[in-house]
Amino acid sequence: MSGDIRNLAAAARSAVPALAVASGGQKNQALCGMADGLVAARPQLLAANAADVAAAQRAGHPTAFVDRLTLTEQRIAAMARGVRQIADLPDPVGEIPGMWRRPNGLLVGRMRVPLGVIGIIYESRPNVTADAAALCLKSGNAVVLRGGSEALGTNRAIADVLSEAVAAAGLPKGALAVVPSADRAVVKEMLSLHGLIDLIIPRGGEGLIRAVREGSQIPVIAHDKGLCHTYVDRAADLAMAEAIVVNAKAERPGVCNAMETLLVHAAIAPAFLPRGAVRLAEAGVELRGCPQARAIVPAMAPATDADWDTEYLGLILSVRVVASFEDAVAHIARHGSGLAEAIVTADHATAMRFLREVDAGAVFVNASTRFTDGYEFGMGAEMGISTQKLHARGPMGLIALTCEKFIVLGSGQIRDSRT
Amino acid sequence: MSGDIRNLAAAARSAVPALAVASGGQKNQALCGMADGLVAARPQLLAANAADVAAAQRAGHPTAFVDRLTLTEQRIAAMARGVRQIADLPDPVGEIPGMWRRPNGLLVGRMRVPLGVIGIIYESRPNVTADAAALCLKSGNAVVLRGGSEALGTNRAIADVLSEAVAAAGLPKGALAVVPSADRAVVKEMLSLHGLIDLIIPRGGEGLIRAVREGSQIPVIAHDKGLCHTYVDRAADLAMAEAIVVNAKAERPGVCNAMETLLVHAAIAPAFLPRGAVRLAEAGVELRGCPQARAIVPAMAPATDADWDTEYLGLILSVRVVASFEDAVAHIARHGSGLAEAIVTADHATAMRFLREVDAGAVFVNASTRFTDGYEFGMGAEMGISTQKLHARGPMGLIALTCEKFIVLGSGQIRDSRT
Repeated sequence: MSGDIRNLAAAARSAVPALAVASGGQKNQALCGMADGLVAARPQLLAANAADVAAAQRAGHPTAFVDRLTLTEQRIAAMARGVRQIADLPDPVGEIPGMWRRPNGLLVGRMRVPLGVIGIIYESRPNVTADAAALCLKSGNAVVLRGGSEALGTNRAIADVLSEAVAAAGLPKGALAVVPSADRAVVKEMLSLHGLIDLIIPRGGEGLIRAVREGSQIPVIAHDKGLCHTYVDRAADLAMAEAIVVNAKAERPGVCNAMETLLVHAAIAPAFLPRGAVRLAEAGVELRGCPQARAIVPAMAPATDADWDTEYLGLILSVRVVASFEDAVAHIARHGSGLAEAIVTADHATAMRFLREVDAGAVFVNASTRFTDGYEFGMGAEMGISTQKLHARGPMGLIALTCEKFIVLGSGQIRDSRT
Repeated sequence: MSGDIRNLAAAARSAVPALAVASGGQKNQALCGMADGLVAARPQLLAANAADVAAAQRAGHPTAFVDRLTLTEQRIAAMARGVRQIADLPDPVGEIPGMWRRPNGLLVGRMRVPLGVIGIIYESRPNVTADAAALCLKSGNAVVLRGGSEALGTNRAIADVLSEAVAAAGLPKGALAVVPSADRAVVKEMLSLHGLIDLIIPRGGEGLIRAVREGSQIPVIAHDKGLCHTYVDRAADLAMAEAIVVNAKAERPGVCNAMETLLVHAAIAPAFLPRGAVRLAEAGVELRGCPQARAIVPAMAPATDADWDTEYLGLILSVRVVASFEDAVAHIARHGSGLAEAIVTADHATAMRFLREVDAGAVFVNASTRFTDGYEFGMGAEMGISTQKLHARGPMGLIALTCEKFIVLGSGQIRDSRT
């Protein structure tokens, strides 16, 4: 078993040089072949998936879990559409954003190149298999995919289709591999293969991400959690604030860029909170407030200290009245997870301070944190949202799967130690 | 002791918000104050250093070690000059390279911001103290410095001067700290402080870097070693190749961007190697060749397998004749350390292939690898050269000490789940 994953990773590593210089046309041919293949293989995919779903139901997995695992005709079509969208993005590899000439005539610049081999560890959502494979291939990387053990049959069926398209486009077969084992020990082995795998990206819940971070000898990029705030400043337009707050909390509460805590300046709280609370209640949101917030809206439950650090991922919102802009920024610095933070204000100087002083992957003025997303930012499909600062921060698209090397064009220059 | 380093790092962390929004003028005031202070404090610095040097001599450290440890008037002046050069660089913090407007009117862009707290672990070269502190301050980061234990007295004296300038510029005192202990256990403790320190940069020999990489729970950026090649293509201009090869090997052989292995295309080896060997011998270089190279220049010693993986850091060069461009690229892929690689060729298509196919921090056409350096690339002072791919690759200047957050300017936009 341990030999298997090492062999897969070694095959992926040996595909790296050919992938790095594959043309955009060749990669797009593979991607279009993948999309066509997924649509054509619907019967096989649905059959493999039906077996996984039946096993998951027998094992007593919750309905939500089984739903995420289940493939339908529509979901297969959506997977294929996603792969085609990735084909449509510009090829990031080989891009040279600019070069500059040195006094000695050397021309110096940077060229964007793939990272090498990327390992993806995820839960039982089969769409991640096609999505992650397509992003890695487009960015010239080999990929080793390790999905949830309950989806193994589905993932192998998807990988068969994808691998065929890779081979048909003349790219090395090792470029794409699904770990063919449900054994959890394989993940531990995979996380030890530095030298073969360059980067690990975990996709899933907090527990999965923590386990990967702690167990990995390979660099990891991930997001820990999404504890996002919206701060309604004393200079906020109240109608705008209401709309943004309701959207950020309730439009889709189960995702990482939804708001978990509302901060309101004390000067505007008496005007904002009563109406805001009604709008939120209409959207089904349960409010938990600090004492000042409850003094204004007594119907709120009291918030405990733990509330300020809780990612509800549901229709609950903690509400705090703050005495000043500085207190809001300090609350965010202390409790935010660095994913997305927003201010609602009509005051320009306050907006500029918030942009500068708040440390997060995405900082919003007068908009909902729900826009924190590769598509919404205009960058195309994303691999996830990074809450760390090194290498990739915020929505991770194709660029996050590449790096830049320096290139230097000379005409015989040598270095003079006296200069 | 363990409490000390944790307290230092916590003080550095608490300095982060103020440093992140410090103006370029304020940071430059601190940097100029540092430079002036170093020059003014020459007597104290020399006295502290003399005590360190005497102790190192008593402990029987080699002459080269003692030389690196020793401060002189000239070296203090050079340190001050280096700090002033960093003040002269543009402030990277707050830079917004561009913004784009989305169909819904949102303006999306990225803003460059500091990383937070950077830990530097280095050997007994006191100039690193001023240099690293200045780079971190200019990029808005707090810094915790841990130099070699033999330089502790000198580093504390330098840090006193630097800290005074930081305070005089109105910046938080915690922004800059020298670990006040020669105890090696402190390094282990320092490497465990994730959450307080964001990034560790080790500067020194291979042993130090390996120990830091293996012991750190914090992300590390470093260069492992510099095993650089120069490939003389069949289409090389021979006079140019000779000059570049001699420069890359012999101009300063003890540094990481010097060449360690020469690859020569078989078709040109009989014309190039005899003259090249004479030029290298004149420069004092000992040659170790593969059988084909020795068939042309019998005076060469035979190279062993170990030679292809050895960073000599001295006047020794391994020489290999390759049958093709592809063999040269494959040799580099197998033995190179990813620091810098060069080709000498007059053929444009071959040059373009080398640029694309060789995977290293810096890839050169018709120039010496010795140019791999932040100053030589026109980027100003450097913190070192990264041989890794994530976050920073190649010479690391101020930009490597920062990251980019997304900023989004709206006018009340909310997300519609149906779009």
